[in-house]
Amino acid sequence: MRVDGSHMRTIWVEPDGWSVGIIDQTRLPHELVVLRLQSLADMAHAIKAMQVRGAPLIGASAAYGLALAARQDASDAGLAAATDVLAATRPTAVNLRWALGEMMAVLHPLPAGERVAAAYARAAAIAEEDVAINRAMGDHGVALIAAAAGRKPGGRVNILTHCNAGWLATVDWGTATSPIYAAHERGLPIHVWVDETRPRNQGAALTAWELNHHGVPHTVIADNAGGHLMQHGEVDLVIVGTDRVAANGDVCNKIGTYLKALAAHDNGVPFFVALPSPTIDFAIGDGRAVPIEQRDGAEVATVTGQAADGRIETVRVVPHGSPVSNYAFDVTPARLVSGLITERGVIAAQADALAAAFPERAATAKVARPAA
Amino acid sequence: MRVDGSHMRTIWVEPDGWSVGIIDQTRLPHELVVLRLQSLADMAHAIKAMQVRGAPLIGASAAYGLALAARQDASDAGLAAATDVLAATRPTAVNLRWALGEMMAVLHPLPAGERVAAAYARAAAIAEEDVAINRAMGDHGVALIAAAAGRKPGGRVNILTHCNAGWLATVDWGTATSPIYAAHERGLPIHVWVDETRPRNQGAALTAWELNHHGVPHTVIADNAGGHLMQHGEVDLVIVGTDRVAANGDVCNKIGTYLKALAAHDNGVPFFVALPSPTIDFAIGDGRAVPIEQRDGAEVATVTGQAADGRIETVRVVPHGSPVSNYAFDVTPARLVSGLITERGVIAAQADALAAAFPERAATAKVARPAA
Repeated sequence: MRVDGSHMRTIWVEPDGWSVGIIDQTRLPHELVVLRLQSLADMAHAIKAMQVRGAPLIGASAAYGLALAARQDASDAGLAAATDVLAATRPTAVNLRWALGEMMAVLHPLPAGERVAAAYARAAAIAEEDVAINRAMGDHGVALIAAAAGRKPGGRVNILTHCNAGWLATVDWGTATSPIYAAHERGLPIHVWVDETRPRNQGAALTAWELNHHGVPHTVIADNAGGHLMQHGEVDLVIVGTDRVAANGDVCNKIGTYLKALAAHDNGVPFFVALPSPTIDFAIGDGRAVPIEQRDGAEVATVTGQAADGRIETVRVVPHGSPVSNYAFDVTPARLVSGLITERGVIAAQADALAAAFPERAATAKVARPAA
Repeated sequence: MRVDGSHMRTIWVEPDGWSVGIIDQTRLPHELVVLRLQSLADMAHAIKAMQVRGAPLIGASAAYGLALAARQDASDAGLAAATDVLAATRPTAVNLRWALGEMMAVLHPLPAGERVAAAYARAAAIAEEDVAINRAMGDHGVALIAAAAGRKPGGRVNILTHCNAGWLATVDWGTATSPIYAAHERGLPIHVWVDETRPRNQGAALTAWELNHHGVPHTVIADNAGGHLMQHGEVDLVIVGTDRVAANGDVCNKIGTYLKALAAHDNGVPFFVALPSPTIDFAIGDGRAVPIEQRDGAEVATVTGQAADGRIETVRVVPHGSPVSNYAFDVTPARLVSGLITERGVIAAQADALAAAFPERAATAKVARPAA
């Protein structure tokens, strides 16, 4: 999307035709730093250190990581070693393993001399596929925003979002933000309430940065404020992303999403979830089976930001001696979800509707887990 | 309550018999700093700068502020001027004006020569009344915790609280924390989930500090985490404080309270509110009439904490250019409240139950607003 008037993506091939450019997302929102990655080791570090993050972007990054590795050693042994290095960078990222599998399916049958060019071509295709899927989600989701605009002529549509399901988490457009950018592009009057999203503050740090640089009107709020805004008619719809959707439509997403879904339900505010269909896990019957990551308590005990003199500083907000717990995700029951915005349209958060929309995936999942 | 083995209150008369000691709460949780106030100006500054905060403590502080003022000038004119100075420190604090009225009712009829001693005596009585009310709330509320303990033999009772309704906000014991300290005193196995409470972090900064120094087991969590914990049976009851309760039982409290009440309701977790009865505003029919303060966006855009080298530092977490909004309170509808823990027992959050429990207050409110 746009950054100060120019169009950017989160990952690209540099003009030299082979090195890979990324935005160092650990420096956002305070600095826009672009890195030029030249080796497998560079890319492995970028993924591990979360200079690139977000499931779709991690997939595209791993693909380009294999392309960089092929330049160094395109032998079977070389690619196998590179795959191991990349797979180990973020152990729980499904897209990472998916992208590596896609790459190896193309590269393995080829003679070593043809692998570098094929690797860059497949990595580029993976990136373009992500952009196309996200645009399709935007095209479907924007109809919901247009309908909300139709219900309040002359008024702006207020959309609340949680965490960062934005273009920074993908190659471009984002998931939850794709309908928002599409609405902005069409001139619909929109305004976005951006949940800060403690403890890692991805809403304030990334979503606000994105919207600000693209020129979309928005306001950052504490995570605690969303219920009050909904009670007072200040939210017309909620759109969030997700890390995993169960076969019955239960939605696993950043911790705190469930609280916003409850408030939306209590106030008659539509609550939508935007996702590329690979995020649906047909092998998991409902959200209770999704494992919830517990992360380092330091993320709650401390906050990182910019001091008055410009330095990036980490300060402690929890007194020494007080234990801290840090669940990273929660599960929103399907009954609270108004619909799932996918690349094939807006689908009801129900098992039969999901299976009907993605029959090829639902069938495979059943075969894969016959004992379940 | 206890601080590292010694008993402390938030306000006391020093051994010299006249100067007033307080804990400088702006330095918590990183430093325990005690101040000795010697003049009206000292106390006015302490209230204004939030070195003392919390409605009940502000009332006691204002009372002692008038006692200090009487030492300087006990004439009618002197006390009137002092009352004006103190009343202007926190314009919206009801307890402040109430305490000044109580003091002047005692002092005004007396000859100037008797006013200093009478002022200290009435201020001490106001402080003791607060302690007695809070202890009574604790005695009533602890029965709820004991009942929860009875339902899980051998297990600990997990109590979630939001913001700081602790002894630091009162003279001693606190409101929401009073049943918790009473349960701890009786040896009930309890553990407290402490909401961080963005944007001002009073949960992490004050409630965690209190519980840690008194020795009550607790864990600090991001505000986003409470719903997930309730879904997984990790919360047995919620106890929060309140800034104002409407005649119908609607509860105005720190922003985010409503979201926890929704999650408690969705998961069958009892949700209680602890309050001294003056917090009930019988002149307000329901929560929609409570004005909600909007505070400086800087509270959301920045976080203050302790840097690695010990300095207290403020860092910016919202990028420049992104607007911020900061609603300080929300209203939890009475339908989500399991009961109100008061000094007269646990009362249903309903108009008739409240009026029956506090008939003298309910009647006065009707007389005061005949046209409403």
